[in-house]
Amino acid sequence: MMEKTKIILDCDPGHDDAVAILMAGGHPAIDLQAITVVSGNQTLEKTAVNAMNVCQYLGLDIPVYAGCSEPMVRKKIIAGDIHGETGLDGPEFDPLTRTLEKEHAVTFLTRKLMESDGDITIVITGPMTNVGMAMRMEPRIIPKIKQIVFMGGAYTNGNITPAAEFNIAADAEAAYVVFNSGVPITMCGLDITRKVLCYPEIVERMERVGNKASRLFGDLMRFFCKTQKEVFGWEGGPLHDPTTIAYLIDPSVLTLKYVHGSVEIRSEESYGRTNCDIFDYMKKEPNMNVAVDIDVEKFWNLVETCIKCYQN
Amino acid sequence: MMEKTKIILDCDPGHDDAVAILMAGGHPAIDLQAITVVSGNQTLEKTAVNAMNVCQYLGLDIPVYAGCSEPMVRKKIIAGDIHGETGLDGPEFDPLTRTLEKEHAVTFLTRKLMESDGDITIVITGPMTNVGMAMRMEPRIIPKIKQIVFMGGAYTNGNITPAAEFNIAADAEAAYVVFNSGVPITMCGLDITRKVLCYPEIVERMERVGNKASRLFGDLMRFFCKTQKEVFGWEGGPLHDPTTIAYLIDPSVLTLKYVHGSVEIRSEESYGRTNCDIFDYMKKEPNMNVAVDIDVEKFWNLVETCIKCYQN
Amino acid sequence: MMEKTKIILDCDPGHDDAVAILMAGGHPAIDLQAITVVSGNQTLEKTAVNAMNVCQYLGLDIPVYAGCSEPMVRKKIIAGDIHGETGLDGPEFDPLTRTLEKEHAVTFLTRKLMESDGDITIVITGPMTNVGMAMRMEPRIIPKIKQIVFMGGAYTNGNITPAAEFNIAADAEAAYVVFNSGVPITMCGLDITRKVLCYPEIVERMERVGNKASRLFGDLMRFFCKTQKEVFGWEGGPLHDPTTIAYLIDPSVLTLKYVHGSVEIRSEESYGRTNCDIFDYMKKEPNMNVAVDIDVEKFWNLVETCIKCYQN
Amino acid sequence: MMEKTKIILDCDPGHDDAVAILMAGGHPAIDLQAITVVSGNQTLEKTAVNAMNVCQYLGLDIPVYAGCSEPMVRKKIIAGDIHGETGLDGPEFDPLTRTLEKEHAVTFLTRKLMESDGDITIVITGPMTNVGMAMRMEPRIIPKIKQIVFMGGAYTNGNITPAAEFNIAADAEAAYVVFNSGVPITMCGLDITRKVLCYPEIVERMERVGNKASRLFGDLMRFFCKTQKEVFGWEGGPLHDPTTIAYLIDPSVLTLKYVHGSVEIRSEESYGRTNCDIFDYMKKEPNMNVAVDIDVEKFWNLVETCIKCYQN
Repeated sequence: MMEKTKIILDCDPGHDDAVAILMAGGHPAIDLQAITVVSGNQTLEKTAVNAMNVCQYLGLDIPVYAGCSEPMVRKKIIAGDIHGETGLDGPEFDPLTRTLEKEHAVTFLTRKLMESDGDITIVITGPMTNVGMAMRMEPRIIPKIKQIVFMGGAYTNGNITPAAEFNIAADAEAAYVVFNSGVPITMCGLDITRKVLCYPEIVERMERVGNKASRLFGDLMRFFCKTQKEVFGWEGGPLHDPTTIAYLIDPSVLTLKYVHGSVEIRSEESYGRTNCDIFDYMKKEPNMNVAVDIDVEKFWNLVETCIKCYQN
Repeated sequence: MMEKTKIILDCDPGHDDAVAILMAGGHPAIDLQAITVVSGNQTLEKTAVNAMNVCQYLGLDIPVYAGCSEPMVRKKIIAGDIHGETGLDGPEFDPLTRTLEKEHAVTFLTRKLMESDGDITIVITGPMTNVGMAMRMEPRIIPKIKQIVFMGGAYTNGNITPAAEFNIAADAEAAYVVFNSGVPITMCGLDITRKVLCYPEIVERMERVGNKASRLFGDLMRFFCKTQKEVFGWEGGPLHDPTTIAYLIDPSVLTLKYVHGSVEIRSEESYGRTNCDIFDYMKKEPNMNVAVDIDVEKFWNLVETCIKCYQN
Repeated sequence: MMEKTKIILDCDPGHDDAVAILMAGGHPAIDLQAITVVSGNQTLEKTAVNAMNVCQYLGLDIPVYAGCSEPMVRKKIIAGDIHGETGLDGPEFDPLTRTLEKEHAVTFLTRKLMESDGDITIVITGPMTNVGMAMRMEPRIIPKIKQIVFMGGAYTNGNITPAAEFNIAADAEAAYVVFNSGVPITMCGLDITRKVLCYPEIVERMERVGNKASRLFGDLMRFFCKTQKEVFGWEGGPLHDPTTIAYLIDPSVLTLKYVHGSVEIRSEESYGRTNCDIFDYMKKEPNMNVAVDIDVEKFWNLVETCIKCYQN
Repeated sequence: MMEKTKIILDCDPGHDDAVAILMAGGHPAIDLQAITVVSGNQTLEKTAVNAMNVCQYLGLDIPVYAGCSEPMVRKKIIAGDIHGETGLDGPEFDPLTRTLEKEHAVTFLTRKLMESDGDITIVITGPMTNVGMAMRMEPRIIPKIKQIVFMGGAYTNGNITPAAEFNIAADAEAAYVVFNSGVPITMCGLDITRKVLCYPEIVERMERVGNKASRLFGDLMRFFCKTQKEVFGWEGGPLHDPTTIAYLIDPSVLTLKYVHGSVEIRSEESYGRTNCDIFDYMKKEPNMNVAVDIDVEKFWNLVETCIKCYQN
């Protein structure tokens, strides 16, 4: 029997984070051990509630830990224009009957990793504050992390400034800590997530599955595509965060390149740019796998498979 | 009768600069009034000789002015790996029988522009040092420049660092001066020049024209494509600089977007990045037309047309 | 009866930190509730041992908490050339019979502050990592901190680069967090600590007191002045850190100016410079008291008073 | 007979520049060959007129060349609050009967230096734009410059931001070019010019000489000290620029230290800071003499001597 991939999902739900939870919580190849949340798409209070709402809605019994409400160094930004007032506008959720764990996400991450056998993958689909903070609170966790797979950055152009993608720009110093940690890293940047656009046909296809996961997907994506169109003028919204989980279920969905990558923290104008040296101009030691292409058909099949994992 | 577009071509030949000279010198829609050269693909001494060699070879009686041998602020870099020892390795030229103009290119530019009726287009296909210096020597030339069309920059990723394209990175401060001058600007960046790859079929097609211009094109491109393959691993070399002349002959070859663009001069790591706000994230006043697409077939047709303008 | 000033001393002993502990632990006006240590003058392991050694030697029953072994973002630097192999070379200490607290200094700081009535002063005499991290782990501690008094920075020139002082340069991002927190801040920078030079006469004067504190002071300062002379060529070493405690015992020892101060985190060259706007050029809202002068005689009297507080 | 020091004075008068002209034009040890002006304390048009006014008033037959009206890269700033509407408020001048030279200051500098025997000292008492531009227009002038003595910068703190002094901050890129040119450089920064404060007693002493130069000095300084008091709250205004000329007449007036110095051009916040490594922390090759002390009495004696050089 194939061994499950143990993951902790560090996220800021957020519509595409919610789909990542849906996929990770449903698919049998993934053992989703915990969710940690951070300020990002919305404030910490809201992303914590959103993570619990998604779990409760889907019947997932996964502990949720709240982490940092502020970036490591810079001033906080959120993405309310894209994700709405709650950070997860669209679906309607029943009142919460479950609660947050008492432990701080950063404390949980350090404890959990120190107790582990080095077999936990961290998936980050929000700003990297929680993981960066944990690495600084307890540097001995670094060799304990099996790998980090994250959605963020872009080696072409950004989505919050011409230089930077939101998750990285929201806490570039945390990304700097993570990129320089020595942990094996895989980056799913805008370069590929902009290829998985959730057009109305996709929404309809997933809704046809006809279970609760499929309904959640539909409710989330209708709102998300609406704001993407309003803010950016695009027809289908890019389903950023789920690319990380798709990759962990089936690595062949991504084409990776092992390159040197760094993050700009010294410039005001280009703050948060991920300078991934795809063509090896700088002749520096590679430190990350960067996704340079995605098999779009395979990706949507994986999303559908995950949705189908849920009963009624 | 259609009026010719008066241009001064500020360049650093360079194989693709040489093709730009060939096109501008041959096509009847362009009135190439002067060539100014700058340090870039090779040192000033070499780019000056190269410009004269190209003109002499093609029988073009165009004055050549030598400008700055150093960037405005930063330390000089050249691109000897791509353009070879002379900066124009490949073709063989007869001994030069013509000479450089005595006037400094910067002094020439200020004088010529001040004397003009505001009808001169500056085409820049190298680092922007000469034009930046001229704007600072004599700010009154600024309203006299009809427009600037340049090859350089990239809103996606660079070709000398992950962040920056060579021409801009070789003198980002000069680009900063030009971008902030208020002159109408059109940018032909790597984003489109990487689409006009000079594959062997193209070289053969142009050689079939069978005149001196066609032989020069072939000799230049065989060398250029060889080093592009050695340095970057690409089969066909991108014919960067001629996109500017192609655009001036037939504007429909490019798809432009009028956006705000700035150049990074405050970061070591991202130095020279052109932050073109293609999606208008920053809501700043547009200041440049940025080429976002190119009609590749039309481009090669224009190159062929220009080659055919030369007799025998 | 005068109320004691409750303090937590966050430090990286370090010779001058040791004198700060001596003063804070001895003087009746100060209630030294805990010592937290950080990487700085030496690695965390060594500064933790040093803090315990000083307490044990002086008979001070004060809990010591170990905090961060790495700066928040940048790569670690230490000051082994000034403070020697152990970070506290000079005195000989008996084997330690006491131990560190189990709790992480950052966790302790957040817990202690959240439980407090807002009456605790944080004194920082090392890099600001622990306090910066605590503010980001739990932002609600910020209004609970009565004030921060720190040794670090310089509005004139630095002592590790021309721009920056060691404590700030060792973790400028942490200083950025602290400076922008809104907590009342008092800065004792090199501008004044360079005026309290510990010449041999001073060492002899303190040794004449003839108790254990006086012997510790002598052993510390003989080594410290030796390395200061070797590294900087100065006769007497500046007794940086104790200026904070002297100020808390008798505020009249310092002349303060309430100004706007910021810390440079975007430049490689000037990284860690504290730009204190002493002359109010920028017309920005003041956010810190900066020491601009020190009463040198009063300062040494305060040091002597503190030494005399110890019996035999 | 002692050889005269040949100088070109590159300035932006400005009250203290005017005193520098007065001193250089009057003293027999100095051969003031030309004055070049630049935008700085006021716009180029005004500084040009001011330089001519001072020469005409004092009967000095020295050619004046107008240079750059804009800094090399950054946006222009002027110091109208200190030097008034004209840039030289205070004295009243007769209508000008002389004119500017036709040649651009940058062209003049390159021509004059190329024709010279390498025996010309450049004194800069404004932003370094003209000299930086000349070095870039014609790099072969660099070995022709005997030395550069300039007023500007500060290794302690600035006078326009906490980090930077006005002349350097007004064109830090030009200073970067000059500092990295390899020309022998002597810097008279705020560190010493703040010690030569022109108190009312000084003004009265100079006025007692009773000639035209003495009257000019008085008229200039009364206005200058008034605005210094209004803007900075200081009683006596620092007589910055004349320290350069005093040094060339009698080098013993300054205490110099040969150190490595660089200028910050990559930071917004610390832009223009001169990082002079007075204590050699960085172990870099020295490239400039930095004035670290001034003999105040000797300085005022030199000023008085210069004033006395003028008849009636």
